[in-house]
Amino acid sequence: MAKMKTAISPTREENYPEWYQSILKAADLAEHAPVRGCMVIKPWGYGLWENIQRSLDSRFKETGHVNAYFPLFIPLSFLEKEAQHVDGFAKECAVVTHHRLEKGKDGKLVPAGELEEPLIVRPTSEMIIGHSFAKWIESYRDLPLLINQWCNVVRWEMRTRMFLRTSEFLWQEGHTAHASKEEAEHETKKILQLYSDFAHECLAIPVIVGEKTESERFPGAVSTYTIEAMMQDKKALQSGTSHFLGQNFSKSCGIQFQNIAGEREFAWTTSWGVTTRLIGALIMVHSDDDGLVLPPRIASAHIVLIPIVHNPETRDAVVGYCEKLGKELRSVSYHGDPLRVLVDARDMRGGEKSWSWIKKGVPLRLEIGPREMEAGQFSLARRDKPHRETTPVKQSEISYRVPEILDEIQSQLLAKAKQFQDENTVIIDQKSDFYDFFKAKEDEIGGGFALCHWNGDPAIEAKVKEDLNVTIRCIPHHLPPEEGICLFTGEKSERRVLFAKSY
Amino acid sequence: MAKMKTAISPTREENYPEWYQSILKAADLAEHAPVRGCMVIKPWGYGLWENIQRSLDSRFKETGHVNAYFPLFIPLSFLEKEAQHVDGFAKECAVVTHHRLEKGKDGKLVPAGELEEPLIVRPTSEMIIGHSFAKWIESYRDLPLLINQWCNVVRWEMRTRMFLRTSEFLWQEGHTAHASKEEAEHETKKILQLYSDFAHECLAIPVIVGEKTESERFPGAVSTYTIEAMMQDKKALQSGTSHFLGQNFSKSCGIQFQNIAGEREFAWTTSWGVTTRLIGALIMVHSDDDGLVLPPRIASAHIVLIPIVHNPETRDAVVGYCEKLGKELRSVSYHGDPLRVLVDARDMRGGEKSWSWIKKGVPLRLEIGPREMEAGQFSLARRDKPHRETTPVKQSEISYRVPEILDEIQSQLLAKAKQFQDENTVIIDQKSDFYDFFKAKEDEIGGGFALCHWNGDPAIEAKVKEDLNVTIRCIPHHLPPEEGICLFTGEKSERRVLFAKSY
Repeated sequence: MAKMKTAISPTREENYPEWYQSILKAADLAEHAPVRGCMVIKPWGYGLWENIQRSLDSRFKETGHVNAYFPLFIPLSFLEKEAQHVDGFAKECAVVTHHRLEKGKDGKLVPAGELEEPLIVRPTSEMIIGHSFAKWIESYRDLPLLINQWCNVVRWEMRTRMFLRTSEFLWQEGHTAHASKEEAEHETKKILQLYSDFAHECLAIPVIVGEKTESERFPGAVSTYTIEAMMQDKKALQSGTSHFLGQNFSKSCGIQFQNIAGEREFAWTTSWGVTTRLIGALIMVHSDDDGLVLPPRIASAHIVLIPIVHNPETRDAVVGYCEKLGKELRSVSYHGDPLRVLVDARDMRGGEKSWSWIKKGVPLRLEIGPREMEAGQFSLARRDKPHRETTPVKQSEISYRVPEILDEIQSQLLAKAKQFQDENTVIIDQKSDFYDFFKAKEDEIGGGFALCHWNGDPAIEAKVKEDLNVTIRCIPHHLPPEEGICLFTGEKSERRVLFAKSY
Repeated sequence: MAKMKTAISPTREENYPEWYQSILKAADLAEHAPVRGCMVIKPWGYGLWENIQRSLDSRFKETGHVNAYFPLFIPLSFLEKEAQHVDGFAKECAVVTHHRLEKGKDGKLVPAGELEEPLIVRPTSEMIIGHSFAKWIESYRDLPLLINQWCNVVRWEMRTRMFLRTSEFLWQEGHTAHASKEEAEHETKKILQLYSDFAHECLAIPVIVGEKTESERFPGAVSTYTIEAMMQDKKALQSGTSHFLGQNFSKSCGIQFQNIAGEREFAWTTSWGVTTRLIGALIMVHSDDDGLVLPPRIASAHIVLIPIVHNPETRDAVVGYCEKLGKELRSVSYHGDPLRVLVDARDMRGGEKSWSWIKKGVPLRLEIGPREMEAGQFSLARRDKPHRETTPVKQSEISYRVPEILDEIQSQLLAKAKQFQDENTVIIDQKSDFYDFFKAKEDEIGGGFALCHWNGDPAIEAKVKEDLNVTIRCIPHHLPPEEGICLFTGEKSERRVLFAKSY
């Protein structure tokens, strides 16, 4: 059989990393910025972030969190208050040292007005938010304090990849303070569950929920929890983290409260975040060799109406009909929002136009010409099906059929991703099998998720990372304790952990 | 008559700048950050920004604009491409010179990893967005390009005041490119009108719309338009600007397109923005000596329900009743959004509780005790009326009466602000009257808006600024051309301009 021609070249099989870059370009999602390691998020990509924000923001508010805004700059002395924390970020932070420019000897502008204390562009905001919390909290009546911030952060990464790892990225960071350890731990896990629900329901991404090992913990945290997703190259992508900070940060920031008994205590804090990396996850979980595939709940547009005009005289009538239908569809509600409808009346060949929307991942396409108008019968093309396969829909039924079909696409994308994850998750009990499973070279597709016994020694983790670039992604919550033998040492183990290559 | 006791001290009369600071504190809107010139926007203040964002964002989208995101950092060499532009910002910008920290000789962390080229934290994004536009635009078919960005920017201001002028602030910046001068000029004015409509309809702030004189133009612009509002100390606050950039920035960034005739042309660009300063405007236009007063369309909460419990045994019933009523009200739509309802069941004296919401500016308060529950009849207290004056409302009517009364408050706040502006706007034709009008000392209430003839000479503007700290806020669009005599020079003048002190 002849090889099918695909819209994206190379295909996933041929070269996965290049396929990813091609998708970004073909779907017009983002581009490299002229600043090292930074990206420009183009409108089609930013629309995804807006939908992620809206859905998460309403989930945060429903669980009692409120938004606020804290400064971009953190004085160096603040960062130094928590030893582990500053160690974790010192190697990769943007430092502001001057507050103006002036003409140098050669007439060129140079930095001037040196600051007394350097300022760090926030890599995360524990220390600056902790400073406010210490002022805001006086008594147990002020707790819990449940704050979220939507903002940009900067981590000067050496190896960057658009959406997945960039020097500047957008995120939300939740920061909460509680009167007891139990309550703070409960909050950490509540948010972990919120992230997992959001990934399943909106992104159609199945995730493995679990705890990080010590070596993968957030700098300064007592415990770090994560949701891990499997990309189509079978690597893991850490997609959201929730940290129980114990009293570490409240001690370094001085966050104290008076308890009911009238005694001063340090508060128990948490922090948690997801980033624009989720857009990378969306791309790598669902897209195919023809371009982006978007789950309807998060798509920048749900449906595109394409007027088919073979004859200039019918153009106005067909375009007018599509615009009227578009308006009708926009009055239909889909999971609480109006349907997002595009009418593409550009002067361009129909095939080329359709392909542009296939590459951009719009879930539904509707080509409408004089014949369809007259018959009141349309052929709906689904992005998750072969391009020539269509679903017949009557005009009179379209306003309820479209949301129905979108929900069907949404659940099928999730099911497909879940099946892929399941098929590529294995139980391994022999070291040689383990090394064999992960033998694929960097940038080759191979491996998957391996559930294995491990003795709990960080040195073993380090060795596996060095040998195979494989790490423990998490200690999965869904696996029950199980006695076994560490496949690396032969020592006793109490549970299996999840090993994988990762981004 | 004895002086009324007020919740805010000092009053506006007594000390306007201190009154402003007291409002920020009493309404829990913001606080100084430990970073020079920066602020923390607290949840009650940030809620206002969220509402401003939502309303403006939908207006931008309705007029065909889409959001995107560009890097925080601008290479120094980019900023230098436009001579006037860099001159305008060189004196007040945060400069990143290093990308990590390392231990110095004394064991303390110091900046390390010096960058080859310093990066400027964006004070505005013309140059970095222009770089993308140059890549995105090839032909007239790619125009107009209508982009907006919501983000933070940094301008290292020497004298700062929360919300009004801070080193870091939040804003939106629109950037558009067009195929013709006329179209770009039309866009500049369309956005100016959008800002003016938004100020009137949502913020209940009447604004004077007009063009800036040359000396007040955005660095690099051909013309700058503004909306100017009058604060209660009779000073002007520039509340939004829209710039026609001609081909200045397209020439320095290389934004060219092929026109219909196949020739290469430079595009015509615009930029425009409003900032968190609008929250300062909201405060200074509407608030009184008892605290914040919020226009309903922008209020973080529309109504607060306060259970009145004199007897611990009735507590559950009263609180439960309020929560049920709150749920009912949240299902009511107010200008397309659900009513924002708070139920304040804190264990606190009723009077203290009511006053906390008065100070926070919630438009409506409803105290509910067993008597009100039984009678099905409530007394609604309005923030814009004396505190003891209430409006009777039946339970059966509450879901349509609340939106009605909110609209009434909204329009009365606008009318009151308009009346204040009108009463303090004068026509002045004599220099001595002018100097007399503006004689009030800095930080004293006095002066107002003066409409005067001026010969167009920037040297006169500079002199008036030096003498009185008064500037030309704009050449108002609503005033017809009118022949007259410049009151400073006796020379001919073709129109009146608006003079005022300003923030």
